[in-house]
Amino acid sequence: MKTLTLQTNGRTHFVDITAQVAAAAQELGIDQGILTIFVPHTTAGVTINENADPDVTADMELVLDRMVPWSGGYAHGEGNTAAHVKASMMGSSAHVIVADGKLQLGIWQAIYFCEFDGPRTRTAWISATCG
Amino acid sequence: MKTLTLQTNGRTHFVDITAQVAAAAQELGIDQGILTIFVPHTTAGVTINENADPDVTADMELVLDRMVPWSGGYAHGEGNTAAHVKASMMGSSAHVIVADGKLQLGIWQAIYFCEFDGPRTRTAWISATCG
Amino acid sequence: MKTLTLQTNGRTHFVDITAQVAAAAQELGIDQGILTIFVPHTTAGVTINENADPDVTADMELVLDRMVPWSGGYAHGEGNTAAHVKASMMGSSAHVIVADGKLQLGIWQAIYFCEFDGPRTRTAWISATCG
Repeated sequence: MKTLTLQTNGRTHFVDITAQVAAAAQELGIDQGILTIFVPHTTAGVTINENADPDVTADMELVLDRMVPWSGGYAHGEGNTAAHVKASMMGSSAHVIVADGKLQLGIWQAIYFCEFDGPRTRTAWISATCG
Repeated sequence: MKTLTLQTNGRTHFVDITAQVAAAAQELGIDQGILTIFVPHTTAGVTINENADPDVTADMELVLDRMVPWSGGYAHGEGNTAAHVKASMMGSSAHVIVADGKLQLGIWQAIYFCEFDGPRTRTAWISATCG
Repeated sequence: MKTLTLQTNGRTHFVDITAQVAAAAQELGIDQGILTIFVPHTTAGVTINENADPDVTADMELVLDRMVPWSGGYAHGEGNTAAHVKASMMGSSAHVIVADGKLQLGIWQAIYFCEFDGPRTRTAWISATCG
């Protein structure tokens, strides 16, 4: 298992971690199989989406904020209920096929760490299972 | 493959199944790899989120009900369209890294079975793949 | 790794790919483990939900369109921000347990390719990891 450390820069912030994940895959020495990226936080998630136009993730952050407003008469005293919901909507893990030692992603795809209650220093865990 | 059986207590009910999943992992004898928790239902899902304050999952149930109202002029005759949508939003599987025989979860994380059309007796399936 | 090719028939279209996935599993020769279905697109996803009543997926398409309207004052110039958000809400991968060479699905479950910016010719990738 490899651990990535990253810094997020806003309450909501999608951080492209594809290069770090690819480097971790190489260090893990996986040739064929599945790479799992797991986020050990409850107010952040991980997703795979477009990396060509940065407006895409900016729009995604906006749409998620509209769907799950920060203030909503929630019971949770810490005040970050919206972040918990959005974390589960994106999911706590992403999974990429590895073939011939390389991550198999579509040409527009990147792996994003999804911060919903930042800015913070965060981690993601990478693990490989063989095919 | 191990099967968990559980009872849900409301139309919407997040049930913490972490201890049962950890026991299943031990019975499966996995030392290093990925544990998959799969929900074989179409009106329930599974997610990983906070277990410290029970208000978090209560709020999540509330927010999901606001996003996907039970009544919405839906076509499906059984009347539980909202439950199907919420099941896919949370997902039918969750995945946890296992290292040295132990589930690797963040300190606030728990695994929740997400009931959206209960109360019912439900099942979850647990399977391990090796690293 | 196996590649499925499929044709979608509307802007939003859930296509049942269960039979093609089961055939790919057989060709991959997996006996025990996890089958991963990965979508290499950023405006389409994959989910598992009910196949008994076609109204369920029609309703799901409707509810997702209500939650994430096509027009929303988005920045992304290509105009398909809603499709990107819905792709991440459903997820880029689905995972099914395989036991004794057979996909383990609940009796009402099917695997759906989720088109959100069609109609298009699309692909899905199938990979197996052993238990």
